[in-house]
Amino acid sequence: MAKSPETEHPLKAFGWGARDTSGVFSPVKFSRRETGERDVQLKVLYCGICHTDLHMARNDWGFTQYPLIPGHEMVGEVTEIGSKVTKFKVGDKVGVGCLVGSCRQCDQCTNDLENYCSNLIWTYGSVYTDGTLAHGGYSNFIVVDEHFVVRWPENLPIEIGSPLLCAGITTYSPLRYFGLDKPGMNIGVVGLGGLGHVAVKFAKAFGTKVTVISTSINKKKEAIEKLGADSFLVSRDPEEMKAGAGTLDGIIDTVAATHPLLPLISLLKPHGKLVLVGAPDKPLELPVFPLISSKKIIAGSGIGGMKETQEMLDFAAKHNILPDVEIIPIDYVNTAMDRLAKSDVKYRFVIDIAKSLKAE
Amino acid sequence: MAKSPETEHPLKAFGWGARDTSGVFSPVKFSRRETGERDVQLKVLYCGICHTDLHMARNDWGFTQYPLIPGHEMVGEVTEIGSKVTKFKVGDKVGVGCLVGSCRQCDQCTNDLENYCSNLIWTYGSVYTDGTLAHGGYSNFIVVDEHFVVRWPENLPIEIGSPLLCAGITTYSPLRYFGLDKPGMNIGVVGLGGLGHVAVKFAKAFGTKVTVISTSINKKKEAIEKLGADSFLVSRDPEEMKAGAGTLDGIIDTVAATHPLLPLISLLKPHGKLVLVGAPDKPLELPVFPLISSKKIIAGSGIGGMKETQEMLDFAAKHNILPDVEIIPIDYVNTAMDRLAKSDVKYRFVIDIAKSLKAE
Repeated sequence: MAKSPETEHPLKAFGWGARDTSGVFSPVKFSRRETGERDVQLKVLYCGICHTDLHMARNDWGFTQYPLIPGHEMVGEVTEIGSKVTKFKVGDKVGVGCLVGSCRQCDQCTNDLENYCSNLIWTYGSVYTDGTLAHGGYSNFIVVDEHFVVRWPENLPIEIGSPLLCAGITTYSPLRYFGLDKPGMNIGVVGLGGLGHVAVKFAKAFGTKVTVISTSINKKKEAIEKLGADSFLVSRDPEEMKAGAGTLDGIIDTVAATHPLLPLISLLKPHGKLVLVGAPDKPLELPVFPLISSKKIIAGSGIGGMKETQEMLDFAAKHNILPDVEIIPIDYVNTAMDRLAKSDVKYRFVIDIAKSLKAE
Repeated sequence: MAKSPETEHPLKAFGWGARDTSGVFSPVKFSRRETGERDVQLKVLYCGICHTDLHMARNDWGFTQYPLIPGHEMVGEVTEIGSKVTKFKVGDKVGVGCLVGSCRQCDQCTNDLENYCSNLIWTYGSVYTDGTLAHGGYSNFIVVDEHFVVRWPENLPIEIGSPLLCAGITTYSPLRYFGLDKPGMNIGVVGLGGLGHVAVKFAKAFGTKVTVISTSINKKKEAIEKLGADSFLVSRDPEEMKAGAGTLDGIIDTVAATHPLLPLISLLKPHGKLVLVGAPDKPLELPVFPLISSKKIIAGSGIGGMKETQEMLDFAAKHNILPDVEIIPIDYVNTAMDRLAKSDVKYRFVIDIAKSLKAE
């Protein structure tokens, strides 16, 4: 018989998790493995709330196993290291993002693209190599192979920066990979949420001109005055969209809801690239003629590898790129999830785990 | 009042055209402009029948103007040149493909990508700079700006090679542009028609391993034994498709009918590229998750620029790449169109214009 989450490992742990498809969070006792020779044990200090956490808690994608203790944007402090750990020492500030494992041998892994390994292990919701369910950062501590831990840059505030570990790398990686990081380029960002607002900041830091594309004019002032975007297009305004046709070198589309692609494709210059980083659960409509007539590209991109995640954090520290966050205590998480479902947050919730998470 | 096609220009011409949406072809008298100072006049010798000709003749896309005299895969002989023509002389064998004009000034044109100029002029069906309707190669002669005429390589048979001017460049260009031309790569070709069979030949000439993907097992023998493909997958066989998952670096998809993309995306390795060169008239369903989870790309590509078209012809001549054709007289064109609509041709009809087109 399978052991319970509380007894399957030797180390007692606690956090907040969802126990069923209601997605309601409550305190959960569980356990963690002992620190292996290549493992880092870290006390979680802050953990961002990603939209994925909400989808997983409510089983929106149909494969959630309960109890679900989410969290893949965590910053913490190293409390123990294994005998063969070389990158970290006790007391270091570190980050753990979306990944805690991969095969380490395939073409993807050997090219620093562990995020595309077909045997990758997500920080939570995946089955770990020992057969137990992986649990994330809404918890007091975690044990992670050092390969999947990143060094936290000294001047990057730990209480604000944690969303970079998912929202940051998810937008940084495609801007780099698809060559949308050249000064003077015109880059569009669709959707101004957790991902979109960081995409604007990275694209600006690369020296590009940024156009935010949103369904609502209400976000215009903030996009331009606060986030530094150069211009703003209301996607529901055919005149504005027509005026913007053929002007963008690339677009980072962060929208996870079903939405029309044709207006976005039309905004691209010939050979322009539309990169999808939000995953609608239903297929989108793909018009083929406009792709062929201008050699346009539609691509997907998901987070980034460990090496690039470190590079992204270092870049963020150097260029002072930080997400805009609302810091909350853990017992606010149910309210936060409801607000997140209504996009009522600017732009990311971060849970102050260290101060607010108590053993019940 | 607009002049009739027969009198709008000074030079009398004749050909076969469709007069209405029935798409039935019959002899048409019309006229051509005089040879301008940068123009080449050429006697049409052979002209391929592209699927586009059929769509346009029957007004499938809703914008056909009649009379429609199609043909954008023509090989001919220069009979007159303008005073400023430098590339050609009378008697030269030359080709004219899908384009006869573009703005020559935009970013696309100045980068040898006239095919993506927003003011390009198609060889037929477009309105030319003088306001008259452009007519194609199902005709005795044509007058074309020398920039849009290509030199016909000496050892490339004129009676067989004409489909390279559309089918050839349409498949050659994306294989090159998207880097799918490296020896040892695994390349898929979807659909074994006019475009697909040439795609196989180019991909093989580049040194790649070619997998043909088709709805029907019936084409397997021919694909492998005659065209030189390395393997064959029946797209309707889930077991075969599953076995091929994650094996291809890129796919050239030539299918112009609505078809599912997910099975093709699944065949790609991470970072693989699915290039659409056939244009279904309805949007396709685009599943986003599989793109994101493996950073895959879907792109469109349409023909090629003039410089690349010349390069493709020279490459074909050097590597002995020729389409498989059925040569027909012009008065067979209605039957040919009916057969083409049923994909009953291996793989391209070519009209022997020189021998069979007579003034009525």
